[in-house]
Amino acid sequence: MNKLLPRIETPADLRGLSVPQLEQLAQEIRERIIQVVGNNGGHLASNLGMVELTIAMHYVFDFRHDRLLWDVGHQAYVHKLLTGRNARFETLRKAGGISGFPNPSESEYDLFHVGHAGTAIATAVGMARGGQMLADNRAVVALVGDASIFNGVAFEGLNQAGVLKRQLLVVLNDNSMGIAPTQGGMAEHLAKFRVSPVYEEIKKRVKKYLPQVPVIGKAAFDALDHLKEGFKATVSPHQIFEQLGFIYVGPTDGHDIEHLIELFRVLKDVNHPVLLHAHTQKGRGAEWALAEPTKFHSPKPFKVEGCRVEVQSGGRSFTSAFADAAIAVAQSDSRVFAMTAAMPDGTGLSKFEKVLPERYLDGGIAESATVDIAAGMCKAGLRPVVAIYSTFLQRAFDQVFQEVALQQLPVVFCLDRAGLVGGDGAVHHGFLDIAYLRGMPGMVLMAPMDEAEIGACLRLALKLDVPSAIRYPRDNVPEPMFAEGALPEFELGRSLRLRDGDDATVLAYGAMCAHALAAAETLAGEGISLRVVNARFAKPIDRDMVSEAITRGGPVITVEDHSLAGGFGSAVLECAQELGLSTSHVVRLGLPVDRFIAHGPRAMQLAECGIDAASIAKAVRNALGSHVEAGVHG
Amino acid sequence: MNKLLPRIETPADLRGLSVPQLEQLAQEIRERIIQVVGNNGGHLASNLGMVELTIAMHYVFDFRHDRLLWDVGHQAYVHKLLTGRNARFETLRKAGGISGFPNPSESEYDLFHVGHAGTAIATAVGMARGGQMLADNRAVVALVGDASIFNGVAFEGLNQAGVLKRQLLVVLNDNSMGIAPTQGGMAEHLAKFRVSPVYEEIKKRVKKYLPQVPVIGKAAFDALDHLKEGFKATVSPHQIFEQLGFIYVGPTDGHDIEHLIELFRVLKDVNHPVLLHAHTQKGRGAEWALAEPTKFHSPKPFKVEGCRVEVQSGGRSFTSAFADAAIAVAQSDSRVFAMTAAMPDGTGLSKFEKVLPERYLDGGIAESATVDIAAGMCKAGLRPVVAIYSTFLQRAFDQVFQEVALQQLPVVFCLDRAGLVGGDGAVHHGFLDIAYLRGMPGMVLMAPMDEAEIGACLRLALKLDVPSAIRYPRDNVPEPMFAEGALPEFELGRSLRLRDGDDATVLAYGAMCAHALAAAETLAGEGISLRVVNARFAKPIDRDMVSEAITRGGPVITVEDHSLAGGFGSAVLECAQELGLSTSHVVRLGLPVDRFIAHGPRAMQLAECGIDAASIAKAVRNALGSHVEAGVHG
Repeated sequence: MNKLLPRIETPADLRGLSVPQLEQLAQEIRERIIQVVGNNGGHLASNLGMVELTIAMHYVFDFRHDRLLWDVGHQAYVHKLLTGRNARFETLRKAGGISGFPNPSESEYDLFHVGHAGTAIATAVGMARGGQMLADNRAVVALVGDASIFNGVAFEGLNQAGVLKRQLLVVLNDNSMGIAPTQGGMAEHLAKFRVSPVYEEIKKRVKKYLPQVPVIGKAAFDALDHLKEGFKATVSPHQIFEQLGFIYVGPTDGHDIEHLIELFRVLKDVNHPVLLHAHTQKGRGAEWALAEPTKFHSPKPFKVEGCRVEVQSGGRSFTSAFADAAIAVAQSDSRVFAMTAAMPDGTGLSKFEKVLPERYLDGGIAESATVDIAAGMCKAGLRPVVAIYSTFLQRAFDQVFQEVALQQLPVVFCLDRAGLVGGDGAVHHGFLDIAYLRGMPGMVLMAPMDEAEIGACLRLALKLDVPSAIRYPRDNVPEPMFAEGALPEFELGRSLRLRDGDDATVLAYGAMCAHALAAAETLAGEGISLRVVNARFAKPIDRDMVSEAITRGGPVITVEDHSLAGGFGSAVLECAQELGLSTSHVVRLGLPVDRFIAHGPRAMQLAECGIDAASIAKAVRNALGSHVEAGVHG
Repeated sequence: MNKLLPRIETPADLRGLSVPQLEQLAQEIRERIIQVVGNNGGHLASNLGMVELTIAMHYVFDFRHDRLLWDVGHQAYVHKLLTGRNARFETLRKAGGISGFPNPSESEYDLFHVGHAGTAIATAVGMARGGQMLADNRAVVALVGDASIFNGVAFEGLNQAGVLKRQLLVVLNDNSMGIAPTQGGMAEHLAKFRVSPVYEEIKKRVKKYLPQVPVIGKAAFDALDHLKEGFKATVSPHQIFEQLGFIYVGPTDGHDIEHLIELFRVLKDVNHPVLLHAHTQKGRGAEWALAEPTKFHSPKPFKVEGCRVEVQSGGRSFTSAFADAAIAVAQSDSRVFAMTAAMPDGTGLSKFEKVLPERYLDGGIAESATVDIAAGMCKAGLRPVVAIYSTFLQRAFDQVFQEVALQQLPVVFCLDRAGLVGGDGAVHHGFLDIAYLRGMPGMVLMAPMDEAEIGACLRLALKLDVPSAIRYPRDNVPEPMFAEGALPEFELGRSLRLRDGDDATVLAYGAMCAHALAAAETLAGEGISLRVVNARFAKPIDRDMVSEAITRGGPVITVEDHSLAGGFGSAVLECAQELGLSTSHVVRLGLPVDRFIAHGPRAMQLAECGIDAASIAKAVRNALGSHVEAGVHG
């Protein structure tokens, strides 16, 4: 059988295919996604569920002109394959390759570079209203998942969308999963309507009432009325969307291409906000992914051999180390309560839940409410440990400010994915947390350099009567720096010297310590003696550390996996200035202030930003004004 | 007639009063609030609407033990009057006096110090779940307004609340207004149910079915069933809350104390999440406030004389200057579209709406969606100017990051209330915006020193192809610094020297310029010659300005109405370090890093933080190591 996918250069090519051919194409797309994600890692199960919906949307709409907005965007692989990116799809998530998220720099079909959930409806409302203002009536479609749609921003967007006086189509891709099983009262409500909808009956009615040609205006509304009656006869619609002002259509089978095309043809021309509710299966087409959709939400590279699937094991991560440390502190302190926002696997807390299920809560893709719930629990007497990625805690910035910092509640935030995140790229780097948390009075900011220090951070955090945040990267832990039991405990605002040296001083924050020590090794071989200090705290910063480093002579290099604007290095500068010390011999290494770092391996990103061991060594050499080049001596 | 209010020392004293006495008390409370807010300014209309609800809640619950959580909190005046703060209520919003918001440092009845909307339900869920964990079954009540409840965080909270397996009462205070008329599809939906509910009929049914004594367990549920039937017979309930898992009760008359007491008695003991929907009138009891609830939401001091109410006029504010400047740029640039999030009066945009209604949108108390809508509009080709208070933009931090900065969309953010805000105090100071925005690649940060510069900022912002944020305080504009038409336009990253001098240099940001110039005048009288530079930009910072200031000799003083952690002064330090310049003779003035600044007059707060003219002059003298004291020469 001839392959169809290579022949799809633009979505217009879909329109030359018959329904059986489109179904064959769907099969090829699934194979392609499994192959590439198997090699590169990436988002799998959600994309396998989106194949038919995406084909049908592109079949009916013309998204060079019409507007397609992805919520989260990790489910846009099918869209990428249909919009001229099949040939390059092998480069998915690799440096210089196809991004794992929609990205306008890749394709005119991608409008927004996104990766955080809940925002597409509001953005779509903006494009729709902008269109109205500019007398431009292109269709606007937002594609949203069932977990995202009950995120706060999404709800705010729905609330604004319902009063629009023009076309706006929200497609609700309901796989009942989100990233993990969807949380909350609304999820339970939706679940009621998931019980065996009589799809055959729906389809019969659609065929009977739908005109065979595209319709507009009044005709579209009439067709829609019949359509809605068809659905209502078989399953209950969700009144919440109608209460918000939407025409609700569904639920429908999100895997029936022919039916979806018919639906989109009608809905395209309805001059009113419409919500189309489609049921899909996360992991569709791969039994092993269907069976474990959370495991295959965003797996590392894997191999499929018959029924066996082997996911690459990745060594000991900071995430796993955190999970074990959190379990350990919880076992010795009954006040500890662990929380995540839809990331039980990503934060490692799924392990915590297995051990201490009654002391664990997944707040769903609702970072803001999750932080507020933690604040309430803390006020009630518990000690919540809230694990949220650095980039996602941005979504709860105001709750961290008001419900936690302003109350001086000792909630412990654990910021996984702090710093450069590798393949997920710019949408997920956690490079602002020090800057946005540092100005909150009372907030303690710390970072562990290795596994043993994660436990030490948590133990200190649980002794504090103020809030704290612990940051660590999406990376493996380095070899332990100290023999077991030999690590000095964390003391508030006290750094830890890791290595002595006379020529220069590196002040390293968190996971940067290992890189600084490696640089010191390299430089030692060149006759350069480097002192390496584990700063441990960005706030309160160790004033003695700053004073000593700056006054002892020799360059001082600060290293952080964070923006150079307002981060750890800036805290060192502020401290030095307050102490009346000159900082003209300080060099700050960190992420650049005026550009975003693209996706690629984390090691490459660290090098690009000049914060890996080789870059630190180079910075020391430069600062020493030395002409010793690594090439000459190394 | 003997006054009752002075006799209420704790809420327990309410229980000794008859219903007619409680009604008299309500009248006294209204008078007291009008009197004190008339003298001090503050939140008026919302508090007048809350009198009976608050009395009834305190009559039934014991909030020394039970938990009462306020959403926003500006409607808690009645609560304060009933919880031992009547005698001191004259000090409302004054330095050292009663705060305008709930504040745990004032009273054991205030659990959270809040001022931002939408968070009480999630916090209540946290306290309820915390109670479950700790085997503590105190009642939890969240009091939420109709605009707040459709804020994203509130919705996330409702979604989590619905699955609670215990008591939780959400009281929806529905005055159909929020701060301005409530926005969005849900507001339109709620409005449908506002048409003349037959309260008499409801009350009859309640009386008939309600047991006369407090009930618990099964009995409470039975009573509730009758109650719900009573409501259903007359008006439709809101299915959305039931879909979220709540028992919905209402709508009911929020001004009928006797009825409310009966309701709370039943609802207190229901071991399930309940939403009580009460209709109230914003401004109840004062015809002039009822007629103009937005004007009397948070007025300046005013005088009531018969039917005439005269609100203190306040001089020309930055807010008014912004409104006029926004209208001016919009009139010459048809792409300009103005947006606010529920603050049409607070941001001055109500004036814009009057002039250009079709180019204005109020997104409601939904800062996140408002920013996303702006991003969508900008992508569609418009140039949104989004006016949101600095403290409230924190609620859209992630949307500014993802939908705006990551896309490099030239949305213009206008941050009113940047810096110290006076009477609203710690919950509303905008002291983090420079820090949290500065790390976003491409973001341009600027601040006007006076009215003419607001227009200049806007004109530059609209020429940029990147996002920008303009900050200005809750204050009056100073006298114009330049003759009309003589102000040099803003050039990206270029400062403006305002006054030359040899002894020291002040680098002032935004509204701090006027204070720096006043300091220079004072110092000139002492023989000290001060150079004053209007930095204009915190990002990109003027490197020539930094280099020149630092290398010309003499102390350099940076002044900002913002946290010292990561703000303008830190940007100066970073720049100096990058230029290899010593900063040991730099002094940074700004808000302290480790405490919140309490409410009081803004002038007093500026002095407390050391950023008013006198403090700047003092800092210069200190830096010069001079012993010239103001007292000797001035």
